[in-house]
Amino acid sequence: MAGSEPPEMESDWTDIAAKAQTKLRNSIPAEYRIPHDKLPPEDQLDVTGFPAKCGLMSEVELKITESYATEIVGAVAAGEWTAVEVTNAFCKRAAIAHQVTNCLTVVMFDDALKQAKKLDEHFSSTGKTIGPLHGLPVSLKDNFNVPGYPSSVGFCAWALEPVKKESTIVGTLRDLGAVAYCKTNVPTAMMIAESVNNCYGRTVNPLNRNLTSGGSSGGESALITMKGSPLGIGTDIGGSLRIPAACTGIFTIRPSFGRFPHFDASTGMAGQEAVASVHGPMARSVADLRLFAENVSNSAPWLKDPKCIPMPYRSVELKQKLKFAVLWDNGMVHPTPPVARALKEVAAKLAAAGHQVIDWPADDHAEAMDLMGKLFVADGGQSIKKILEASGEPLRPEMQAYGQVKDLGVYELWQLQKQRTALAKRYLDRWAACEGLDAILSPTTPYAAPKSGDFKTVSYTGVYNILDSTATSFPTGVLVDREKDVYASDFKAYGEVDEVTKKDYEPAAVHGMPVSLQLIGRRLEEEKMLAITERVVEDLAS
Amino acid sequence: MAGSEPPEMESDWTDIAAKAQTKLRNSIPAEYRIPHDKLPPEDQLDVTGFPAKCGLMSEVELKITESYATEIVGAVAAGEWTAVEVTNAFCKRAAIAHQVTNCLTVVMFDDALKQAKKLDEHFSSTGKTIGPLHGLPVSLKDNFNVPGYPSSVGFCAWALEPVKKESTIVGTLRDLGAVAYCKTNVPTAMMIAESVNNCYGRTVNPLNRNLTSGGSSGGESALITMKGSPLGIGTDIGGSLRIPAACTGIFTIRPSFGRFPHFDASTGMAGQEAVASVHGPMARSVADLRLFAENVSNSAPWLKDPKCIPMPYRSVELKQKLKFAVLWDNGMVHPTPPVARALKEVAAKLAAAGHQVIDWPADDHAEAMDLMGKLFVADGGQSIKKILEASGEPLRPEMQAYGQVKDLGVYELWQLQKQRTALAKRYLDRWAACEGLDAILSPTTPYAAPKSGDFKTVSYTGVYNILDSTATSFPTGVLVDREKDVYASDFKAYGEVDEVTKKDYEPAAVHGMPVSLQLIGRRLEEEKMLAITERVVEDLAS
Repeated sequence: MAGSEPPEMESDWTDIAAKAQTKLRNSIPAEYRIPHDKLPPEDQLDVTGFPAKCGLMSEVELKITESYATEIVGAVAAGEWTAVEVTNAFCKRAAIAHQVTNCLTVVMFDDALKQAKKLDEHFSSTGKTIGPLHGLPVSLKDNFNVPGYPSSVGFCAWALEPVKKESTIVGTLRDLGAVAYCKTNVPTAMMIAESVNNCYGRTVNPLNRNLTSGGSSGGESALITMKGSPLGIGTDIGGSLRIPAACTGIFTIRPSFGRFPHFDASTGMAGQEAVASVHGPMARSVADLRLFAENVSNSAPWLKDPKCIPMPYRSVELKQKLKFAVLWDNGMVHPTPPVARALKEVAAKLAAAGHQVIDWPADDHAEAMDLMGKLFVADGGQSIKKILEASGEPLRPEMQAYGQVKDLGVYELWQLQKQRTALAKRYLDRWAACEGLDAILSPTTPYAAPKSGDFKTVSYTGVYNILDSTATSFPTGVLVDREKDVYASDFKAYGEVDEVTKKDYEPAAVHGMPVSLQLIGRRLEEEKMLAITERVVEDLAS
Repeated sequence: MAGSEPPEMESDWTDIAAKAQTKLRNSIPAEYRIPHDKLPPEDQLDVTGFPAKCGLMSEVELKITESYATEIVGAVAAGEWTAVEVTNAFCKRAAIAHQVTNCLTVVMFDDALKQAKKLDEHFSSTGKTIGPLHGLPVSLKDNFNVPGYPSSVGFCAWALEPVKKESTIVGTLRDLGAVAYCKTNVPTAMMIAESVNNCYGRTVNPLNRNLTSGGSSGGESALITMKGSPLGIGTDIGGSLRIPAACTGIFTIRPSFGRFPHFDASTGMAGQEAVASVHGPMARSVADLRLFAENVSNSAPWLKDPKCIPMPYRSVELKQKLKFAVLWDNGMVHPTPPVARALKEVAAKLAAAGHQVIDWPADDHAEAMDLMGKLFVADGGQSIKKILEASGEPLRPEMQAYGQVKDLGVYELWQLQKQRTALAKRYLDRWAACEGLDAILSPTTPYAAPKSGDFKTVSYTGVYNILDSTATSFPTGVLVDREKDVYASDFKAYGEVDEVTKKDYEPAAVHGMPVSLQLIGRRLEEEKMLAITERVVEDLAS
């Protein structure tokens, strides 16, 4: 079982990778397979229009897949669309999306359609839905366990091993009426900010295939941006929900630990708790995130997940005028020009809308990132290396840090944990001192989206994993402009990563890409942060 | 500062212990010091009647100190008693209690009286209290930091070092109007189930001075049982609230982690998080526990403590008839005869009151205790040994395990953490399978109270630290009866500890002692468990 001890391997990792890729290819129904000469040419960067043009999808299928999750559950509950019809449409569009972005790892279309059929039978015989997500297709990041399917987590060793256990969230979603129909690509161990691994290869950004769709939930972000999924579930331990959401211009919320059930999701670092991994929804609107958050919270997941907090969805009443603090720059890596411009434009619009906008210092951010770096490899990288070794898989170049460390020892870990809690206290005190502060506005990443291979720092997101803050990422409406978005001639880099970030940045290469930002709350403020994000989006649109 | 790096010591531990004891003795006002020949003779076991007989306390002081916390805040808010009058009475009674049980480590009477005076001035000038605990004296376990006073945590190295930081709960209580006036004894590092250390010596049980008052919050339990405090704050990492409460027949609640603020309390194992230490109230009634729990929760402690959960006090409506599962025996150590009888009698009364009473299996209890043992010494005992070494203090015989271990390494720690979460999931699933289950009824310890030095197992409490369950301990009204409470002739021990427990047990030695039991809920069910405990107490009394 993935998540457990590595199984004894009969074949080496290259054989497994080849088999896994063949298996995935063959699991896509023949009628959805597109001949090579009908695919967009390799130099076509934006492939988001391909589903509508490829000839495989009917008008109604296009309409279904272009709908929001909230619209879909409404239409199914109203009897306008059947669950089978909706599921079928998304299976087809996901298959198409995969063929142009390499976003899937596991196809579960047959089981999904069976489940959808049962939902339809229930609905037609009772006139009722089985739950508030009745008939809603949901895509799952690869590490969520569905019995009978593998959870590779980007490891060759696990790619052909069906898991036996079910992640709590998978059962919860099914009980709510949702239909899981595919799993999506991740980087090795989910510990790279792009979605690339030695088994399934690299997922690319459907808005510009030279760019990364981010990671580690970058299969999700590519799929959702292709409208191959109305709602995806990803995870975040250093920015893995927010980074891919930002790279593709969709919405997500990183909840605080314990808010949504996370039990028995596979991981390459089982038992690591000092920086908690959480899962959260990814979608094309805040309302769709709320659809997930509200229904999952109200399903009493704490009765099933021992780490889940008994906290039903809370109503929230925002002040008329909010108080935002802007983190312009984290003192480690400057945001690239389009992100810096988006920050300025958003801050100005918020001020114009009557909100209070102040500055937020980057105090403690460098220390938080130093802690994160140490905590991730505190076991000397052993957990990940043992899984790699089971199939002879090499450590990817992005993860060389895992090869160079020793187990820290528990005493040293305790010192780091103590340091982390002290840091969190200082941060909280600064927040409290800033009376009435509602949210921090910050870059999600320094990039609109970097070229594949160029993602260099998770420092804008990682701080809030160390703090376990609630944080959303949202598209600002700002698009990269190759004319406006250039580095100032007197730019001074903070250091090597900042220098490389500038060097890697080419305005023309990201021209037209959406720019996202992050909104950060305190711990366990999911309802409030969704409401604030919605308000910000409205204010930016008006 | 206690809680930080050990300071460089100029003198060795025996010098420090002598100085700390002298300092403590001298800090008790001369007029409260009782000449040796006026103290109860050393062979007088029950000293709870001494405060009323020693001649130091007036009628009104006796009345004040025999009142419940809820009565005290009512009387002060009604202007019947002043805060100074109340504080004075408790300072005096605490001083007396200390001289017969050795329960204090730090006396803060002067500061307390100054604060009480300010409260009275506020009240007389505004007619209003400053908060719901206005004028209520509270005692603090030694490890809660009050600037200017040491937090020895039972270590000689820290006994003469005033701390600079304030624990969040200390400020919270002050803001609510409470008056902290003394700190109470603990065992070394708070890691022994009796309250004995190389600096301040041993606290004894005021109901029978041959017996322990339990640990690690055993200074508190002795003081409260002497009515030298109406409300004490202790901590619990393996049973340290529940064990001393049970040994002395008072009430406590072990909350789940994050419910009450725990930031910056001193500890011998800073940064240890795998088994979370929590703090909670100790008092002579459930209503007094609720007074604390409700007001602390509603003071929004999550704005001050980064690990605190934003969860205001919730209203709870109990079913008319509850469902209890009885853990008769944990498969490791049998409860001694009076505890086994109390379990039977309480279960019978609950059934007679119309509640459903079923059996609860000890599944996973042995594994949980094995995990706890490993997690406590995962750092190879280094944290504790470094503090001891700073003053040359030897490891106490009760803590030899800390001398025999090596740092486990972070990889192994992660495996244990993973194992612990899997165990918690199984436990939760068994709970869910037992439809409608409200609480587990269990021994708190195998003992009514053992003789000093005889406390051998925390296995009845520790399981619920591993699970982070909400748990109360309450006196059942059952008293040990030397005739009834004898081991059956066919008793078969589970193992060595069980055998020794039987051997140590002498009915005559504990005759008349109160017997307490534990009520366990799921995580973060503080309100519900207080309500259930209150209901049980009512049903037992009727």
